[in-house]
Formats: sequence, structure tokens, C-alpha cells
Amino acid sequence: MLPTIAREGDVVVMIDQRKLPARELYVRCKTAPDVARAIKTMVIRGAPAIGVAAALGLAVGMRRSKATGTQKFAAEFQKTCELMASTRPTAVNLFWAIERMKRSFATGVRAGGSVDQIKDRLDREAQLIHDEDVASCRAMGAFGAAVVPDDARILTHCNAGALATAGYGTALGVIRGAVEQGKRVAVFADETRPFLQGARLTAWELVRDGIQTTVITDNMAGALMRQKKVDLVVVGADRIAANGDTANKIGTYGVAVLAREHQIPFYVAAPLSTVDLHTPDGAHIPIEERDAREVTHVGGAQLAPEGALIWNPAFDVTPHQYIGGIITERGILRPPYVESLKRAVDNVPGPRDPAYIS
Amino acid sequence: MLPTIAREGDVVVMIDQRKLPARELYVRCKTAPDVARAIKTMVIRGAPAIGVAAALGLAVGMRRSKATGTQKFAAEFQKTCELMASTRPTAVNLFWAIERMKRSFATGVRAGGSVDQIKDRLDREAQLIHDEDVASCRAMGAFGAAVVPDDARILTHCNAGALATAGYGTALGVIRGAVEQGKRVAVFADETRPFLQGARLTAWELVRDGIQTTVITDNMAGALMRQKKVDLVVVGADRIAANGDTANKIGTYGVAVLAREHQIPFYVAAPLSTVDLHTPDGAHIPIEERDAREVTHVGGAQLAPEGALIWNPAFDVTPHQYIGGIITERGILRPPYVESLKRAVDNVPGPRDPAYIS
Repeated sequence: MLPTIAREGDVVVMIDQRKLPARELYVRCKTAPDVARAIKTMVIRGAPAIGVAAALGLAVGMRRSKATGTQKFAAEFQKTCELMASTRPTAVNLFWAIERMKRSFATGVRAGGSVDQIKDRLDREAQLIHDEDVASCRAMGAFGAAVVPDDARILTHCNAGALATAGYGTALGVIRGAVEQGKRVAVFADETRPFLQGARLTAWELVRDGIQTTVITDNMAGALMRQKKVDLVVVGADRIAANGDTANKIGTYGVAVLAREHQIPFYVAAPLSTVDLHTPDGAHIPIEERDAREVTHVGGAQLAPEGALIWNPAFDVTPHQYIGGIITERGILRPPYVESLKRAVDNVPGPRDPAYIS
Repeated sequence: MLPTIAREGDVVVMIDQRKLPARELYVRCKTAPDVARAIKTMVIRGAPAIGVAAALGLAVGMRRSKATGTQKFAAEFQKTCELMASTRPTAVNLFWAIERMKRSFATGVRAGGSVDQIKDRLDREAQLIHDEDVASCRAMGAFGAAVVPDDARILTHCNAGALATAGYGTALGVIRGAVEQGKRVAVFADETRPFLQGARLTAWELVRDGIQTTVITDNMAGALMRQKKVDLVVVGADRIAANGDTANKIGTYGVAVLAREHQIPFYVAAPLSTVDLHTPDGAHIPIEERDAREVTHVGGAQLAPEGALIWNPAFDVTPHQYIGGIITERGILRPPYVESLKRAVDNVPGPRDPAYIS
């Protein structure tokens, strides 16, 4: 299992994804602000992984609290939740995980628990979020493998792999699931400018797994499809609106349009924690804009001249019409998504299900 | 005028396009092999500029010949032509320019000229190719400006600018033509991985001209169009087949598909020297594959892990159905291109026109 994120005592350890594939370095976060900074600066990224990081960050952060009374502890917790929520705006898993931690906290308070008991409860909840994420990915992999033909040539964009989750991956989980079922696959990884998650992370983890991986620049996907070298596209998601519109890494929309032009099935793989029924459609999903320097520089190399303007949205929205299916831990959802998403989410144990609050 | 390529005595001087925008360095080519190497290693690139470079390279190369008899001189010339033709396979302007130089040579031999007289003739022909290229670009600019609305937001891919020609540019010539006609424009430049001609070259020369330019990564074009921020796409070409299918920098095809999806006019701007009536359609255009390292590394930074495969085609083919018009120095050609291209080419003075061989 790839060491994306783990808890060691009261420290959250993450592999530094900014340094891959050249170096395998680990960042040790001792406090909640450490974790928040790691999320913001993309030491860790990927919607499910961000959720897990926020939960573990809240747990280790509150573990350090010196508050003795529940009220002061609750005020600190609220502030720490706000800090975590301020890190990145688009991926909804972050807010979902914070919400779960809040519910756990509230349950602890209602049960009359001490500060130490609530700390224990937060620890367990964060670990559960972590472990459930891996389990979700494995379930997605098992369901998703059904849509992968043998000898499939699969295009993916960005990194929706072990590094984007607590382990195994969403889109790459589907690929791993197919491989586990004995299918032969060859993967094409869009390099995914500007942060290069495809070239740096997807290729790195698939090569480690012995899965044949070809890196292409993002603008090669069209030519690749036209030459009939792609059987299937599968990508992750940062937020899925109630109607199925999906925010994912910038460039996903272009891949979806190309896939439809070439009649290639286009799938999104994501846990139900990525679904946001409170957002009616893609137009309502906030899209993070990141620093111009991500575009203008790679390493020490200056790629664009002084004086040029830069546009750097981190995500785009793929309208639901382009999506052939959404692979979740509960099965593959099909259009109309406004119905299938609601049915799947209502069924899931989680913050919205009172039975879950134990 | 940008100093893309010029002759100084018996030296061909080129700005080193690999070093822009960080540094403005010049490469001085004293021999034909120097020029061939500069083309191959992309000191100079862009279909029309490559043609001009080959012509100037042949002229300075033959100027250095010590041959005293026409026969020996002709053998050397033939070898030098083969060297130039071996540099890059896709852009047809290279072969067109070599062909023009061969015709000029043959005419000189037929006229019973001395070696020195033939050298003079080659000099004049090469300079004519250079000067005509600038004139063609200016004509394209004047014709093309008609399709640019005022306050146009124009997306372009790669660099089809002054740096890709002897001066002024093809696609960027259209933009410059619109500006000269008093129209306000804002340009979006795809960065154009892997060689980054958009970020490095297009942005550099447009910023120099005071034209507002926003650099985006290639995978942002879809989101940009969906947000209705693009009124027009104009790109260059490396080879236009008889039916209008157009080879251009990798990624052009994807932009064309996206443009059609969003009902945005998509234009190709190229001199008629880019048209190859001997190639029936895009499937017959040879596509250069370049070194993997262009994809895996930027500057000193390693972007992809060892063990990953790389696909690096330098060009793709945009089928004629996606092209709204081809802007040439003779006017804007419209479908059916199989007719409009033939008519335009047959009309042009050039190697195919006996009247030209003077």
C-alpha cells in the first residue's frame, strides 16, 4: 500500500506529492495548522485524501488541546474546523469530513463525555474516515472493473490514485480492480498541467504496480483517440453536483468532449462523499484559482514572459451529459443522475443518516 | 520586426527559440550543416521559417563550395538539399523551399551560367523566399483581419507568429492585421506542451507588441470556451493536404473539436507554400515523433518517473470538416477545400508555374 497519509502517534505523516517522482520525502504534521498548510500547499491533494487529511488533522490538533472544560474545547474545535475548511474550496470531501468530525464531536458532547473521551472519539472517527476511504476505493475497483474490457487501453487525467485517497485510488482503483480480475490493461496518463499530477503521480504509482503506463501531454489526447488507441476514459472527481455535473481537475472537460466525439465511454469514479446534493448543478460549484507561478514556472525554468497574463483555474466542470456512468462504492450510477445520485446518497451510512451517529 | 532569421554576409543568424523567453541569444550558422542542425534541434521552428532557413542554408552552404565545375557543384548541391530535407518530416514548406532552390539551380545550369553565377542566383532565390514570406504574412493579415470582430477574444495554439516565419506571422499575422485595422483584441495563448511555443514564444512576441495576452495551459481551452470567453480560434499549419486536412502542432485537433462543440469559428492561417496537393488527405501526412525527454523534463526538472513510456508526436491532423476557413496570402479559402485549394495553388507563381521559372 502506498504511504499517502498515515497517523503515527500524534503526528500525521504524508508523502510530499510536490516532490514526486524525483524524490520520496515525507512531511510530518504535528499540529492542525501544519495539516492545513500541507493541504493548501498541495503536499497532499486529491479530493478523498484531502478529506482524510482534514479529519486526521482535526484529531491530532484537538489531541494537543490543553482545554479542560468542554466549552473551551468546543470553541477550539470550531476554530480548527474553520481553519481546515479554509484550505481549498472545490473538493467537497473536505467539508464532508469536517462535517463528520463535527457530528462525532456533538455526539460526544451530548453523551456527556469528558474532553479526553471526546478526543478519543475524534481519533476513532478520523481513523474510520481513513479506513472507510480505502474500503470505498476497493469497492469502486470491484464494481468499476466490470466496465473495463480485457486488453483495455484506458486514458486517465490527473491523479485519482492511491495518492489521491487513503489508498488504492478511485479511477486508478478501477484500473487496479480490473487488473486484480486478471484483465490486461494499458494506461495513458495525461501529464495534467500545471501541477503535473498525471506525469508525476499517476505514472509513478502505476509503474510501481507494474501496470504499463504511457505519459502524454494533455494536448495529445485528441490525436490518441482519433487513432483509436483509447477504449475507455476514467477520471476522479472533486465535487459531483446533484444533477451529475462533475468538477474535476482542469482539463477533464476537454477530455470528456473528445471522448464523446470519438464515442469512447467516459466514466467518473468517486466515493459518495464527493457527491454534494446541496449543489444543484456545476454552475454552483466554486472553482479554485491558484497562483500564476504554477503556470509560468516549472522547477527553475521560466516558461512565460513577464507581462503575460495568466489564468489558472484548478478545476473545470464536466456537464452530466458527457458522463456515461459514475462508479461509486455502492455500484455504478447511470443517468438520470439527479435520481441515481439521490438514491445512492440517501442509502449511505453517514452524517445524513441518524443510525450512523452512534 | 522580430529578428527571427536574417542573413549577414555569408552567415545565417537566428534567434535561439529554445532559450526564449528567459534569454535572447542568437545562433550564427556558417555552413549548411549548421543550419540543418539548427532546424533539427529547433533553434528555429515554424513551417514557413523552416522553409526560409533551408533556403538560406542552401545559399550560404553553396556559397562556400570550392567546386569549380558545374557538375561537381551540382553533386554538392544535391547532397546539401538531401541534408536539409532530412531535418524534419512534417512541414511541407521545407520541401517546397528546397524544390524552389532546385528549380533555380536547374534554371541557372540550363542558362549555361558559371558556378559563381549560380551561387548568385541561389542567393537571390533564397532572399526572395525570405522576403515573399514576410509579404505573404502581411497579406494573410490583411485578409484575415476581416474575420476578426472588434473586441475579439482570440485563442491560438503553438506559435504561428513572427518567430515561425520570416516575420509578422501567419495566425499572429491575422491578429496583427486586425490590430492594424484598429480592432481591439485580447489573445489567449495555449502554452503548447511539450515545447511550450505558446507560453514561451507567442506570449513573448505579442507582449512585445503590446497586445494583451493571457497564457493558459492546453487543458484549460475547454473551460475557457465553455465560459464563452473565446470568439475565434486561429492557428497556423505545417502541411495542408489537398482535401484541407491540416497537420499542425500537437493539440490543434483537440482545440478544433472543442471549438466546434462551442460553435466558435476555427481558422487556419498559412501561406500557399504550406499546401501539398500531392498529399490527398491527412492520413498521408508523415507525423514526426520527437524525443521522450521533451515530455519528461522541463529545464532540470524531472516530470515523469523512470519506467513510464512516452508518446511524443509533434503534430496532429485536424480533418477539414472542423476548419471554417483557410486564410492565405490570396484570400480566405472556404470549403470544399479540394476545390478552393487547387484553384488557389494553381494561381500562384511558384515551382509548378512555368512562368515563374525565369
